[in-house]
Amino acid sequence: MTRSRLTPERESELYGAVLDLLREVGYDSLTMDAVAARTRSSKATLYRQWHSKPELVARSLQQVKPSVTGEIDTGSLRGDFHEMMSRADDEEMERDSALMRGLLQAVHNNPDLYDALRKLLIEPEMQALRTLVERAVERGEISADNPAVDFIPHMLFGSFFARQMIEDKVPDRCFLTRYMDSVVLRALGV
Amino acid sequence: MTRSRLTPERESELYGAVLDLLREVGYDSLTMDAVAARTRSSKATLYRQWHSKPELVARSLQQVKPSVTGEIDTGSLRGDFHEMMSRADDEEMERDSALMRGLLQAVHNNPDLYDALRKLLIEPEMQALRTLVERAVERGEISADNPAVDFIPHMLFGSFFARQMIEDKVPDRCFLTRYMDSVVLRALGV
Repeated sequence: MTRSRLTPERESELYGAVLDLLREVGYDSLTMDAVAARTRSSKATLYRQWHSKPELVARSLQQVKPSVTGEIDTGSLRGDFHEMMSRADDEEMERDSALMRGLLQAVHNNPDLYDALRKLLIEPEMQALRTLVERAVERGEISADNPAVDFIPHMLFGSFFARQMIEDKVPDRCFLTRYMDSVVLRALGV
Repeated sequence: MTRSRLTPERESELYGAVLDLLREVGYDSLTMDAVAARTRSSKATLYRQWHSKPELVARSLQQVKPSVTGEIDTGSLRGDFHEMMSRADDEEMERDSALMRGLLQAVHNNPDLYDALRKLLIEPEMQALRTLVERAVERGEISADNPAVDFIPHMLFGSFFARQMIEDKVPDRCFLTRYMDSVVLRALGV
């Protein structure tokens, strides 16, 4: 019982298909049958390799393109945030929003899945944001005890969900740039 | 084929059970079988009365306790927002968060359900917020073209989702009060 029966390319193709299904129908409606059909594999193969749907989904999350926020360093917090936006791609944001939407209920009911999401996607982004903020504090742009600092991740992640709920739209670069200037930077007093 | 076979009390009991199930398992996993079991009714009765799951869920949303934001008028925007928080009940926020979480993916895939959610829950809350803000503009507390004004609903709704995603916690009164002071009121420059 090893994982060696699938090539890395085939594994990666399978994970990609799982992510696509997650975005389309959400976690609860994602069945192993649907994964098997989409990837032309047998359910037996899927269960032999991954044992369960939560395990398959958690492993698939590792395929999500890593955030680029950590590489940004323009010399000012406003510049860094705007650079984040200019690197964001509308199609990618649509895909990320769909993924978060598809997982929100599931991670609440499935702690292992939540841990995977947190470790693979949320924690790296929060760490990158902390780095940007620490540099802004060192430069004297904001004070370390600025009360809005703790809420930067909430402001950013929140906007993805809120726009879907309020306007039934996924945030695009234009929306996020306005939101960044009107909410995030103003709350920080930058 | 009328709706008169159920008493109003029985109807309301059924809607309450549907909302409870929505909060527990989300829309996709909510089955007519589960509603029938929970409410000790037959599936035939449910389909005779409501025809489909989306219709039953949309009607159930009408049972959600209406927002009290519209009644608030303390004389200042800060006071109004704090009054909103002090009227909020942690248990109620937990229930509201669970409902939004359970519906987010479903409303994306089901326009009729989105319209019901928007009309019954989102639009009344946004209208109430607009009233608070208009009074603040009249009092000269904020200017009508304050760029953060358009995003007040995003900041508030967003925090419900973001805290669940980032901390796996539902917002409670203490969190929301800090968020209101550190983000919403600061972004508005109040």
